[in-house]
Amino acid sequence: MSKSTREPNVVFVGRKPPMDYVLAIVTSFSGSNANEVTLKARGQAINTAVDAAEIARNRFLKDVSVDKVIIGTEEMPPREGESRARNISTIEITLKRT
Amino acid sequence: MSKSTREPNVVFVGRKPPMDYVLAIVTSFSGSNANEVTLKARGQAINTAVDAAEIARNRFLKDVSVDKVIIGTEEMPPREGESRARNISTIEITLKRT
Repeated sequence: MSKSTREPNVVFVGRKPPMDYVLAIVTSFSGSNANEVTLKARGQAINTAVDAAEIARNRFLKDVSVDKVIIGTEEMPPREGESRARNISTIEITLKRT
Repeated sequence: MSKSTREPNVVFVGRKPPMDYVLAIVTSFSGSNANEVTLKARGQAINTAVDAAEIARNRFLKDVSVDKVIIGTEEMPPREGESRARNISTIEITLKRT
């Protein structure tokens, strides 16, 4: 059994424009015959993750829908010169072929 | 039957800091005996909505959890001087007392 059928493909969303991640989603679905792809993002990239999921679903992958969305919080180490840990919001969006 | 028990309370999230909306969420839950409160946001405010939901849940309302998260797309009229309609991402986060 190949790795991609066991664990769902994951796309980590960062600071690039949404279309970069749309391409990654489309590639994941078509390249590996995956049935689902999960987007993970935190902080400001949450916005980009939602955009990428919506563009992929509406424009490129008509047979894919949002399976679930999970929000959460992660503790990050303090920035240089700061003493307190920061809490940062996270999102996981799972897209599934219907 | 009062209005608040029929339809869930809604907090519209915009450009203010997350704590403003945290306060609105806490007030909605405590003021009206509501069992659930829904946050609605679009575009850049999606990020703020997730932050507000997470802060409210983790720090102020220990008996409240995320019931569901829905993402979507809305068509907005074109900006002045532009001709094409814009698509904007949306999020709805429903918090529920457990």
